[in-house]
This record gives sequence, C-alpha cells and structure tokens, in this order.
Amino acid sequence: MQFIKVITLLLATLIGVNAVNAQEHPKLILTQEGVKKIRAELGNVPLYDASLQRVKEEVDAEIELGIDTPIPKDFSGGYTHERHKRNFYVAQKAGVLYQVLEDDKYAQYVKDMLFQYEAMYKNLPPHPKERSYARGKLFWQCLNDSNWLVYMSQAYDTIYNYLTADEREILENNLFRPFADYISIENPQFFNRIHNHSTWGNAAVGMIALVMDDKELLDRALYGIEDDGLELGAKDNDGGFIKVAGQKAGFLANLEDPFSPEGYYTEGPYYQRYAMYPFLIFALAMENAKPEMGVLEYKDNVLLKGVNTLLNLADADGEFFPLNDGQKGMSIYTASLVTAVDVAYHYGDKNPQLLSIAERQNKVLLDQAGLSVAIGIRDGKAKPFVKHSINLSDGQNGDQGGLGILRYGNEELTLVFKYTAQGLSHGHYDKLSFSLYEKGDEVLQDYGLVRFVNIEQKGGGNYLKENTTWAKSTIAHNTLSVNQTKHFNGIYEVGSKHHSELHFYDDSNKNVQVVSASESNAYPGTTMLRTMAVIKNPNFEKPFLLDILKVDSETTNQYDLPFYYLGHVLEVNFDYQSPVNLKPLGEKNGYQHLYLEGKGQAAGDFTQFAWMGNGKYYTLSSATQSSDEILLTRLGANDPDFNLRRDPGIIIRRNEAKDTIFASVIEPHGSYSPVNELSKNSNSHIAHLAVVHDDEQYTAVKITDLDGNQQLFIVANQQASQSAQHQLKINGKSYRWSGPYLYQ
Amino acid sequence: MQFIKVITLLLATLIGVNAVNAQEHPKLILTQEGVKKIRAELGNVPLYDASLQRVKEEVDAEIELGIDTPIPKDFSGGYTHERHKRNFYVAQKAGVLYQVLEDDKYAQYVKDMLFQYEAMYKNLPPHPKERSYARGKLFWQCLNDSNWLVYMSQAYDTIYNYLTADEREILENNLFRPFADYISIENPQFFNRIHNHSTWGNAAVGMIALVMDDKELLDRALYGIEDDGLELGAKDNDGGFIKVAGQKAGFLANLEDPFSPEGYYTEGPYYQRYAMYPFLIFALAMENAKPEMGVLEYKDNVLLKGVNTLLNLADADGEFFPLNDGQKGMSIYTASLVTAVDVAYHYGDKNPQLLSIAERQNKVLLDQAGLSVAIGIRDGKAKPFVKHSINLSDGQNGDQGGLGILRYGNEELTLVFKYTAQGLSHGHYDKLSFSLYEKGDEVLQDYGLVRFVNIEQKGGGNYLKENTTWAKSTIAHNTLSVNQTKHFNGIYEVGSKHHSELHFYDDSNKNVQVVSASESNAYPGTTMLRTMAVIKNPNFEKPFLLDILKVDSETTNQYDLPFYYLGHVLEVNFDYQSPVNLKPLGEKNGYQHLYLEGKGQAAGDFTQFAWMGNGKYYTLSSATQSSDEILLTRLGANDPDFNLRRDPGIIIRRNEAKDTIFASVIEPHGSYSPVNELSKNSNSHIAHLAVVHDDEQYTAVKITDLDGNQQLFIVANQQASQSAQHQLKINGKSYRWSGPYLYQ
Repeated sequence: MQFIKVITLLLATLIGVNAVNAQEHPKLILTQEGVKKIRAELGNVPLYDASLQRVKEEVDAEIELGIDTPIPKDFSGGYTHERHKRNFYVAQKAGVLYQVLEDDKYAQYVKDMLFQYEAMYKNLPPHPKERSYARGKLFWQCLNDSNWLVYMSQAYDTIYNYLTADEREILENNLFRPFADYISIENPQFFNRIHNHSTWGNAAVGMIALVMDDKELLDRALYGIEDDGLELGAKDNDGGFIKVAGQKAGFLANLEDPFSPEGYYTEGPYYQRYAMYPFLIFALAMENAKPEMGVLEYKDNVLLKGVNTLLNLADADGEFFPLNDGQKGMSIYTASLVTAVDVAYHYGDKNPQLLSIAERQNKVLLDQAGLSVAIGIRDGKAKPFVKHSINLSDGQNGDQGGLGILRYGNEELTLVFKYTAQGLSHGHYDKLSFSLYEKGDEVLQDYGLVRFVNIEQKGGGNYLKENTTWAKSTIAHNTLSVNQTKHFNGIYEVGSKHHSELHFYDDSNKNVQVVSASESNAYPGTTMLRTMAVIKNPNFEKPFLLDILKVDSETTNQYDLPFYYLGHVLEVNFDYQSPVNLKPLGEKNGYQHLYLEGKGQAAGDFTQFAWMGNGKYYTLSSATQSSDEILLTRLGANDPDFNLRRDPGIIIRRNEAKDTIFASVIEPHGSYSPVNELSKNSNSHIAHLAVVHDDEQYTAVKITDLDGNQQLFIVANQQASQSAQHQLKINGKSYRWSGPYLYQ
Repeated sequence: MQFIKVITLLLATLIGVNAVNAQEHPKLILTQEGVKKIRAELGNVPLYDASLQRVKEEVDAEIELGIDTPIPKDFSGGYTHERHKRNFYVAQKAGVLYQVLEDDKYAQYVKDMLFQYEAMYKNLPPHPKERSYARGKLFWQCLNDSNWLVYMSQAYDTIYNYLTADEREILENNLFRPFADYISIENPQFFNRIHNHSTWGNAAVGMIALVMDDKELLDRALYGIEDDGLELGAKDNDGGFIKVAGQKAGFLANLEDPFSPEGYYTEGPYYQRYAMYPFLIFALAMENAKPEMGVLEYKDNVLLKGVNTLLNLADADGEFFPLNDGQKGMSIYTASLVTAVDVAYHYGDKNPQLLSIAERQNKVLLDQAGLSVAIGIRDGKAKPFVKHSINLSDGQNGDQGGLGILRYGNEELTLVFKYTAQGLSHGHYDKLSFSLYEKGDEVLQDYGLVRFVNIEQKGGGNYLKENTTWAKSTIAHNTLSVNQTKHFNGIYEVGSKHHSELHFYDDSNKNVQVVSASESNAYPGTTMLRTMAVIKNPNFEKPFLLDILKVDSETTNQYDLPFYYLGHVLEVNFDYQSPVNLKPLGEKNGYQHLYLEGKGQAAGDFTQFAWMGNGKYYTLSSATQSSDEILLTRLGANDPDFNLRRDPGIIIRRNEAKDTIFASVIEPHGSYSPVNELSKNSNSHIAHLAVVHDDEQYTAVKITDLDGNQQLFIVANQQASQSAQHQLKINGKSYRWSGPYLYQ
C-alpha cells in the first residue's frame, strides 16, 4: 500500500494539474470521445436506443413536474428523503441526455436544480432525525448525502461547459466544497473507516474533486484524512467499529481491505452489490480522468474480478444468497448490477456471457460501456451465463476462511457453505452454516435479515431489533448451537478476530464435489469440522447433499443442529407430541423467537423427516442416537410487531455429549403439480444411513438405498492434500485411496 | 325432463339399432370422416403436429416399457393405482395413434393390454382397500374404475376393426359388460345418484354401450337404474346423500340437476373441472354416434355454456377460485380443460378467444376438435380471452342463490362473492363469504380444502379430517360467525335445504360495481345482508372493495368477522397485546385450529390494519365500535399431523350485539420490489370511514380520504329494483336517486 501511494503521489506530482484538462468536460463517466461515438451510433443499437428512450421519458416527466427541493425532514420512505433521492438520480440522467441529445433543456434543468440546492445548502443544519452516528444534511445519514454527491458530480460534469465560470464558482464555493467537507472532515467517523459507508463518502468526495480538479479533495478521497481525531473502539449504529488500530482510510484502503483476491466482499453479496457502484463509478472516473493512476486495475483487477464473483453469488434465478444481513429478492437484475455488468464487459475482457445478463436486465448505461454492451448484443455475441462450483477466499489476503459454492449440473442443486470471517458489522454468528437451493428455490434457507428496506412503516426501513435477537443469532442458521449460546457468545469484538479454516475443497469430480472446513474459536474448547458433499449417484433421481459434522469438545454439552426447511411436513419416521399451547423454546440467544410445535425422540439410529416445498419433495435422513430429541419449531415467538416470518424448522438435539458426529443426507426427489395433480417419486430412496467409522483421522458414512445398493464416503479429518495416501479398515474390509476423501 | 325422455326414447325406437353402424368404427370421439381429415392435414398444422409428436413419444416409451396390469392393492398415489391409471390414459392415446398414423403396433398394444385385463378381470374381487362407500375392482373406488372404462371405451373403439369378431366377443363378455354391470347395477349407491361420481359412472357405461351398440346399457347410462333398491338418507364417505326422495338418476338427470342455466356447477369450479370431462366426452360421443338425441345441446346448450362459465371461474393467472372443496393451483391449463376448450370451440360458436387459451395450454386433442383449434391458431385467429364481471345463478333452475364475480379493468381487482346453495357434499358452511384477488394474487383468501390430492403420505391423498374440522367451518371463511358456531350448525341436511338470496347485482357502471345478497337460514332468527362494491375512485390509485354487512337478530350475540389476509403485518392503528404463549381461540367449530397471536381493542370508531403481500400493500379500514375486540390469529392449533398451512387472519369481534353493521374497505395500494427496493404508496389513502345512516330501508357509509374528499355510498336494503325511487335525509341533507344504490 505504502509503496503504491508513494508511486501515485509521485506520478501526480510529475504530471501536475493539467490546465487544459480543466476545460475538458465531460470527463468523469462520459468522455468527449465517448459522447462522439454515442451520437454517431444513435438509432443503430436497439438496446441502447431503448434505454435512452426510457430515460428520456422518465426525465421529461420529471421536468414536466417541476423541481422540488424540500426542507429535509423524513427518514427513508418519507417524502423529503425520497424526493431528494429522486432528484439526484434524475439530475444525473438529465445531464447524460444533454450530452447525448444536445438539447439545452436538460442542461437548464440540472442547472436550476443545482442552484436550488446551492440556495438551500448554505444555511442547512444537520438533518433533524438524530438516529444516525453520522447525520447528513439532506438526508438522515451522511451515507445518503454521499449518494447524492456521487450522482450530482456526474450531473455537474455533464453541464460544466454549459455554465459560466462565475456560475461554477458559486456552485463550487457554496455547495460542492462545503458538501464534500461536511461528509469528510466534519464527519470523519463516517468518512475515515473501512466500511461500505466510507466507500460512498470517498467516492463522492473523489468524484467532485475530479470535476473541480481539486487535488486536496482528491487526495482526501483516495487516502483518507491524515489526522481524524477519532478514538479507538467507538461503534456505529450497527455495532461496527469506527476506528481500528493501524487501519488506513480512504478509497484505496477501502478497495484493499474488504475484497479478497478473488473479489469476494467480506460483508457478503447484498452489501457487495450496494458497494460495487461507488467502487466502480469512482474507479471508472479515475480511469477516464487520471488513467495513469491505475485505480480501475488496482489490486490485480480486483474490481472487475469482483463483478464476476458477485454474479456467482446468486441462485439460478439470479437472486443473491442472503448471507449475513442480506435482503432476499435482491438480484443481479438490480440497477447497480447494470453498471457492474456493463463496466466489466467494456473495461474487462469482453466476456460474451455478460451480454446474456445485460439482455435479461434489458437496459444498459447511457455511456461508452453501455453502448459497447448494446452493440455486442446487437451483433449476436451474447452467450448464456453459466455458473460453476467456486471456492472464494475471504479477507484482504484471502487467508480468512471463505465461502464454498458447490453446484451440480445446471444448478439442479447448489450448496452455499460459509466458513468466512465475521463480515464486519453486517456479519452473522453462523460459522460453518449452509443453505441449499434446487434451481432458484430454497431447500434449506438462510433467514436473511430482519429489515424491510425503505419501508417506512417498519422502523423507518431500518434494521429492526429482531435482526440482532434473531437473524444474527446462531440458532437462526443451519449450523451447530452449543448449550443454546451464540458463536463467540455473540460478541462482535471476539468474532471479528477469528475466521473458520478451510480443510479442503475438491470439485474435480462433478458427481462428488466436496468442501470441508473447521471452526475452533466460536466455542472455546470445542472444535467443529464440517464436511459437505454434493453427490449424484446413478441410483438416485436427483443429486443430494451429504453433511458430516464432527464435534470434539473438552466438555459435556447440549448440541442443537437445526435444518430450516421451507414447506409442508409430509411424513416422519419418529414419534412426537404436538402441544396444544405453544411456548418459546428458550429465553435468549434467538431461542426466545422459536415456538416448539412438536417434540419427539429420534427413531433409533436412523431418523427421517420429509417435506414438500415449491412442488418438490425433500427428505432429511440422519444417523441419530436413540436419545436424541427431535424438535419441530416455528418462528414467531416474542415478536409483538410481527417482524419475523412464521418459518418452520427441525432441530436435532443431542444432550450431554462431548465428542460426537452428526451425519445427514438432504435428498431432493420427485415433484408435485397442482395442475395435473401428479405426484412423482414422493418417497425417499434412502433405507439407512450410518456412521460406520469415526476417529481422529477418518470418518466414514454408509448410505444404503431401497434397492440395497450401498455408498461409502470416507473423509480424511487430518491429512487432506490431494497426494496424501490413506488406508483404513472398516468391519474387516480394507480401503486404500489417495486424496482427501474416498467415495465408492 | 319427462317430456324430453319420452321424445328421445321415441326417437331411439324409431331409428332402431342400425346394423350398419356396428361396423362403423371409430365412431365415439374420433370418427371415420374426422380421421380422414386429420390424416390429410398431417404436417400442416403446427400445434396439432406438436401435440401428436408428444403423444407419440409418450406412448412409444410406454410400449418400450411393456404392459403391466398388477393385482390391485393400493390407494391413489400407490403403484398399482397409478399403473392402472396410466394404462387407460396410454391405451386411449395409443388407439388414437393407430387411427391417425395407421401403424398396427399401436393397435396391437391396446389389444394386448385389453386381453391382459380380460384375463384378470374375470375373477377379480372388489379392491382390498375397504374405505370407499363403493369399492371398485381395479381401484379402491368405483369412481376410478369408471375413469378406466371412459378411456378404455375410446381405446376399444379405435381398434374395434383391428379385432376379429371372436376377439370382440371375448372382450365384451368377459371384460366390458361385467365391468359396466359392476359399476352400475352392482353399485347403485355409486351409479344412481346426482353426483359427479355418478356422472363418471354413467358416461363410462354409456360410452362402452355406444361402442358395443348395446341399447340396454345405453338406456341405463342415460336414465339410470329404474329400481335401485337404495334407502333414502344413506350417505357416502364425504357425508353426501346417496338417495334423495323424488330424484332421478342417469346421465341426463346429472346433466339437468347440478348445472344452473348459465352452466355453474353447484359443487364449484374444482369439481366442475373434474366433472366436465365425462359430461363432454360422453355428450360428444352421443353427438357423433347418435346426434339425433341432441345430448350435446341438452338444456339449452348448458354444457358448452358451462365451459365458458368455468373459464370465468378463474383468477387472472387462470387458477380456479378454490370455492368449497377446491385444491389451489388447479387451473384452466389442466388436461380436462384442453378437452373443454377444444370441444367448446369446435362444437360451439368458434369463439376466437378460446384459441388464446388453447395457445397457452400449448396442446390440443388429437381428434377433430383439436385439429380445428390448431388450424384456428395456425391461421392467426386467436384473440385474448377477456373476463368480465359475471353473476352466476346456482341450482337447476337458477333459483338457488348464486355467485357474483366483480372484476375491475383487466382483473386489477376481482371480488368473488358466494351466495350459493350448499354445493352438495363438497360444500362449505360459508354463506355470504368472499375472496379478493389483485390480478392472480390472493388479497383475502378462501382457504380451499385440507387434502393433498394424490399424495399418498397425506392420508392416501384423500380428504383429511381437518377438512371437516377447519376447511368447511364458517370461521375458516371471510364471513360472519355468530356465537362461534357454524352456519346451519354445520348440519349438512339442514344446509342442503337452503340457499342465500340475491338482493341485487349491478355491474352497469364499471367504476361502481355492486352485488348484494342476504342469508336468513344459516342462523335462525338472524338475518345477514351483505353488500359488496368494487369502486374505482379517481382520487385513489387502485380500485378498492367496500363491504357492508348488516345483521338483524332477535337475540343478543357475539359476532366474529374475519379477514384472511395473506402477507406480513405492516402497521395497525390500535393497541394490542401479543401473548408469549399461544393458545387456541376456542374448542370447536374451527376455532380450535386458530392460535391467538394478538388481542386488542378497536381504535375507537375507525380501525385500520395494513399488510404487505406479494410485493403490494393493502389496508383494511373499518367502522368499528370502541368495545370491539380485534383478534390476530394464526392457523395451526390442534394440527398434530401438520395438515394445515400457518396462515394469518384478523377478526373483528363484537360482543353482546343484536342488530349491527360492519362496514369496511379493503384497499390495495402501492408496491414494493426487493430488486430496486422502491416502496411506493405504502400508506392507505383513507382518513376515515363511518356508517352515517342505518335503518331498515337504507344504510349509508361515508369514506373520507387524506385530502378531505368524501365518498358517500347508500344502499337500499329493501327496494332494489333499477326503477325504484329513493329519498333519504342524512344530517340534514337530502339525497334522491333511483336504483338500488347511490354513490357520489
């Protein structure tokens, strides 16, 4: 980092402030050359023309409506918030229309709006809503003010030459510079962090700096505030740290830190999607205005890699996996992904698979990148976007655990296995958790967040308290809870110090793909090793998931292993009682939100539970102990504001155990259609599942199907290299193999 | 009836058994002439060719697999059941392929299968499962045996001339005649009723009669068994009456009785869809083989009218309203509707709107009707199928209540208001109940049935006991429960004697469509008059529903009016307590299945409850009394087998009341998308709603919106003719109007 900073500073000094550049506008996202090319192609590129037409209609309607810059008052969802938000979106678009269509009415509209803001901003106090750790002026948080500036910088850039020098001076002195100072030096707790909030702040300041050619602001944006006066240990509204010892700040540091080398963003895809826009848009502005600094190519092209990674963090319908605080339904078809896909195509390696996503997005940016994509589509270059299995490391250097995604076939089955670091303040206490998808349908869900984003009635659209009491808790996830506590006791400071460790990842055989990882810090004195295999066996209709969780503990514990299925209970092979009155399962750590709808004993050493969801059948088959309890749960206890969904779950509870093994198969099978009322293959094909060997070195599981065929899976718990040689005798029979596992 | 019977008998006698006809095969569904035309068009009609190709692939695969006619053993969902079912479907198709493609392998396949059945049937005892009131031999109920014969008659007809006379004699003597006798004279309790079961039995016997040219069997099919020896008052498995005094039997009686003049089938669309096939297929066979009897045109073309009616009993996605015992998800795209649509097009008035449904069905029958539809589509004649508001009477003569469906615009809002008769044994105790749809999404749901059709794990796919204890109960529906009892105390014999009465129906103004009906027998001594209006007011974004329920009682009662919304609670304007432990709301009549999740008091005289479902917002605004209780419920209590969905509801409870008024608006507004996270118009536009007048003659409701605009709706409770003149003074202001209501 230090080295690069020196180099870039040096370069900047050598090149100096180019007086000619100051007149060359637009230069941020649109460039003069780009605009020429766009104008030349108008009418010849269908998707570009259609996108332009839609934007034109939208902006024309807004111009018709007139400009409103109300005195700030509301949270998100409220009028003043939504109006100011709409203003910056529309202004940016109007600026583009001015450049592309050369119609002065668009420039005049942007100019009028900017001067209305200029008149208002001079004397504007901080926003009246005091909830945020960093209040904005136009909005209740600096974050939204930064959004405003990122877009308004682009709008200003496009009409720069339409304004007189005097007009520009007024805007810059009364609006843009004070605005940039407010969200940076006046709010270092917002600006000077490693956090997606700061990325927006950095980008905002950097972009207006480029337009105004203000070197001081640009340095502040890139490298942060030297002396921010912040105290170590302070936290923001979400409980995230504001200042961590030894941490750098500014855009480049933000680019450096949260991305792993493959471009996995530590907060997860929902926030990566949100953060990608400021990262890309400012990097792009730097590429256009100061290409010599190489910001877009920074850290071995991590930004463009990140786009590809993000596209892979979605199910077959393109919806992002709701890891950590992620709202379900957010998808690769959202606006910020249009930017991501267009930029990745144009500035990257022109991957034709990106074109098929752009086709489905059905719109492009109105800049050079968008034109390039639209031309590619017009010329029939689009290829289907195919997702494969992928193992993504977490952490700046890729050494803080990761995320394994195993996909069978054309996403017929997708395992998302999480062995990441904490994920900053939006992280959940869910070490070694997983979720499972059949195409775009959730088979075993990750709950996501407890927040109704932008819905004012639900706590102003902000995080609700059940996000902490339920969504972040360990029992809310498909992973082990020990003694009804959370991982790291739910202490963020502790969780942030640790990450799980990859044991091995092997997707070389498409019919037996395996990922295995361990966690030894979540519960001190207890180590968990979880091995998950997506297996397609010719005797089975569909691929299934084998889940082996090996627990070693110094103490005697109660273990709860939940599976959050979605659907309707079909059949179980164990006895249970269903209480008439429902009571919460516990009093804290998330347990207070679960009702106990049924309680039974495991069916000896082999327990089955079948359900139907989304017109398909599923069976959980588990090697149990006869003393295991089976709990059938329903979310919704202690939820007086109805913030939680009433989703079901099944928990395998093992009492008074130390070292133990949980081995299960989650088996999708058959289908049901209410239109033809055909029920196909509604029964599990598994007759028995047993742990046939377990010691420090090896764990072996045997699956017997209804036809008597047997599958044996042995995992090496210690030596997992591809070249390691293994030998094991089970029930008098010897097995020899090399590599981390044997399947036969 | 009697007159028609005499005429048809006379005609049949005059024409006699035509010896030539006996050789003319096929004559049932395919005809010789039809087959010629089809062969001539092969390769020229894309949808026909594609349908043929699919059927060919299916049948070829089955031929490859070989014929299996296992000894009957299972309930539906089990192997023997599903295999025999598949056999008759495939045999019918193979027969068609033989005719169309003139390839003997298909005839041989059908012949071999029939002889396997012949060999088995001779000594076959009744099915070992004893649950049915009328056990079949191949299947556990005569109903399924009849399905078999309806299809196998067609198969036999198509290969009739492929067989020798000796072969035919063997099949007829050992298989078809004994089969027909078994499901008729040996099971009169099945055959000789007015019921969809009997329709299948009648059609089965009639179709094999036509193929074999057996007049005795044909008479039995058309007119029933003269002396069936059945006792009055006996019931079937579903609690339906088997014999009712004075009731006729046979196909024509079944055609006469359950259809109203517009073709509404009294059991509801789910059963109409099921019953349409035997009705149409046998009527069609009669049309082809004995057109002089005019069965297809019987009762003023009620069968073809019924197809149109059935298509109207669906939401914007084509899914049938789940009235009475209806499984959700069943739609106009199911196989039996392919028959219905093709037949209605070809034998009806060639309505081009039917072609667009056939297009979506994406297949046609392989007979003359299917060819005709495929040619219409090929020739570009298809027009969109547009559904309008419709008022359907119930009962043989259209005088037993009915069903009002009010649709605004292009199904932006659809009200289904039920004021029918009981609906035979599949009827629910839900007088004056309603459900509400926004396009294809349920806003306020009708629960449907408690049955997982054909899913063996759930009680063999049959009705579950919660169908009686919950789904049929009054509290399970969006209608009034008095003193926590069911309509007619849930006594079928009593409910069957009564029906609600239409007060008026007026859809002449597309912006104010009104239906009103009364019920005075469900609770003796208590009369309910419910008026429902779908209103589009220019000050409101979307159309809304106004619901005025006027109750007059001789006694003091507790009234419960539930609204089964689907979605997530957003905001309420009343205080409530949410218990930590959930208890059932009552002990019987359906109340035992509802948990109480929240209990509060009405917010004075105006109570609001808002929710979000399917990405849209909804608000219930109600004129309440401050002593009203508001109950928030969740289904699922006393459901140890997890047969019920965990759906929510809100109940307005009024204690110790006699005459009273419930007036509410259900207001759809706005939308939310998780992809762009835009929340639009999430607040109700209603500021207040009040009953401003109520007496015997008139009830008036005033809606005040947030901008202060007022809407007044006055309904005439007694004189509802279009010409009636009315005058009313409210708060000193006089209103004069003619017709059943005033809206201004």
